[in-house]
Amino acid sequence: MTSLREPPYWAVIFTSERTPEDATGYASMAAEMVALASKQPGFLGVDSARGSDGVGLTVSYWESLEAIREWRRQEDHRIAQRLGREQWYRAYSVRVARVERAYDFER
Amino acid sequence: MTSLREPPYWAVIFTSERTPEDATGYASMAAEMVALASKQPGFLGVDSARGSDGVGLTVSYWESLEAIREWRRQEDHRIAQRLGREQWYRAYSVRVARVERAYDFER
Repeated sequence: MTSLREPPYWAVIFTSERTPEDATGYASMAAEMVALASKQPGFLGVDSARGSDGVGLTVSYWESLEAIREWRRQEDHRIAQRLGREQWYRAYSVRVARVERAYDFER
Repeated sequence: MTSLREPPYWAVIFTSERTPEDATGYASMAAEMVALASKQPGFLGVDSARGSDGVGLTVSYWESLEAIREWRRQEDHRIAQRLGREQWYRAYSVRVARVERAYDFER
């Protein structure tokens, strides 16, 4: 779980439905993309989960819209995006949102 | 998957780690809360996934901050929140974010 920081910052909410294709290749690319995103300037963290119904949510956090743009254009990430559309995803949506409030609870 | 609509609107990003306690009670309450939220004024949709590592993401979408406030105060939801802190969650975080851009892909 990505720890909280003081708003404002940005969230990219990526919601997807997988095809049944290429589970191994997908898992490997997903791990690679997390590692790569973590090295991008302005990256703040990422949380990801996929349920048994095949719907997945990945929320990544960024310092600025510019940081999000740079990540979207990153070369290896562009290749992953193309493979995603060609093979791995039946559908996906991307929402870019400005985090205005944040609070948490821990035992 | 919640279908896209034209921004702006609001997202509540709820990230959580479950305790091992009470899987049946938790699943039943989670389903009840989705049904209840769907009846709230200003509710636009919800997507949810929990991975095998126990980290879950639920993103709900709302027309306004006021709609989010009303849902947060809703009586049965308050009971669920209390049970969540007492039993079901080891930790959680809530982020309220304004969706500024949205796009999607479908085969």
